[in-house]
Amino acid sequence: MNGVTDKRRLSQGAGQRGPAEHERRDQIIRAAEQHIHAVGYRRTSVADLARAIGVSTAYIYKFFDSKRAIGEAICAMTLHGIADKLWSIAEGPGSAEVRLRLIYSALVEQGRAMYFNERQLHEITLVAVEQNWSSIGTYIDTLQQIVRRIVLDGREAGEFERKTPIDEVCGAILQTMAPFSHPVLLQVRLDNLDESAGAVARLVLRSLAP
Amino acid sequence: MNGVTDKRRLSQGAGQRGPAEHERRDQIIRAAEQHIHAVGYRRTSVADLARAIGVSTAYIYKFFDSKRAIGEAICAMTLHGIADKLWSIAEGPGSAEVRLRLIYSALVEQGRAMYFNERQLHEITLVAVEQNWSSIGTYIDTLQQIVRRIVLDGREAGEFERKTPIDEVCGAILQTMAPFSHPVLLQVRLDNLDESAGAVARLVLRSLAP
Repeated sequence: MNGVTDKRRLSQGAGQRGPAEHERRDQIIRAAEQHIHAVGYRRTSVADLARAIGVSTAYIYKFFDSKRAIGEAICAMTLHGIADKLWSIAEGPGSAEVRLRLIYSALVEQGRAMYFNERQLHEITLVAVEQNWSSIGTYIDTLQQIVRRIVLDGREAGEFERKTPIDEVCGAILQTMAPFSHPVLLQVRLDNLDESAGAVARLVLRSLAP
Repeated sequence: MNGVTDKRRLSQGAGQRGPAEHERRDQIIRAAEQHIHAVGYRRTSVADLARAIGVSTAYIYKFFDSKRAIGEAICAMTLHGIADKLWSIAEGPGSAEVRLRLIYSALVEQGRAMYFNERQLHEITLVAVEQNWSSIGTYIDTLQQIVRRIVLDGREAGEFERKTPIDEVCGAILQTMAPFSHPVLLQVRLDNLDESAGAVARLVLRSLAP
């Protein structure tokens, strides 16, 4: 249930005009994503985008306030995709323990894929973090909901302890995910990330033991 | 013992010339630190520094290869100061549990002090992380040694469990400190940092319970 609410929020961004005309808006986002994929976000202007897509800048401004609004839409879409994969783990089969481990591995896998295969999307997330775009906050909220879902399941099944306040537990677990979800931290040490994430997941699971 | 070795390593940096003449070198570092404090690292050149200190650029190049070498020396000095405070906690009184909690609080306190009172030093640490300066690696090694010292003390005193391999435990604890020690992460969320650090410290302590 939480997953659905959150996905709806992720598909919206700041500075986007008009309630309808979704299709044309989506066409621009997809074309902009391709262009930015090749050229990079920082080195792209709205005029460049318009030229690459084959429309006027005025046409783009009918749908987006600024280059940043387009970047936010792309970033939201990317993070939405990651959140979807994480939700399918959280709501999937397996004990709470197994699902929590899988979340750490999936964070590393997504981060690595973005860094190696989609470097320009990684650049957008760096800008997004720097400028505190709303999609980042939404993504962090989603991660928090995912953690909460799994911890609640684990408490209900008797897998996890129930003494510590749930907000404290979930907030602290979210912090332990920073080295594997923050784009700046991910880029400096991709080498032994799987091992690190595994060790942190196991530490967290020991802390959750009843 | 480890503390002493490490401190010696911290006082050395890359690209520094001449084995002796420490005093003149230190004078340059102190003067450079004052200048950079006022103007910022990125906006300072070696020529600016020479002018501000009242010496020739040739004189500075007798001691330092480059602006970066001066920056590295300042960064090493700053991180050395923080490491000193952390060591005095690690080797100080109190149970291992108390000392581990204090390390998390001290990280937040040092990070906040640097961000608010010594913004230009914070800027240097950002550049240092970006460019992977050796002082950052040395500081992380020191943090790792500090964690290890406390965990070993706690194991010996029967406060902490002894089943999990010590390297795995210490490595994972180090990861949980990233949100409170990494300059990029510190700058985005200074608001509820004490609460967060406390919650993570308690999570780690629950994971260490015998």
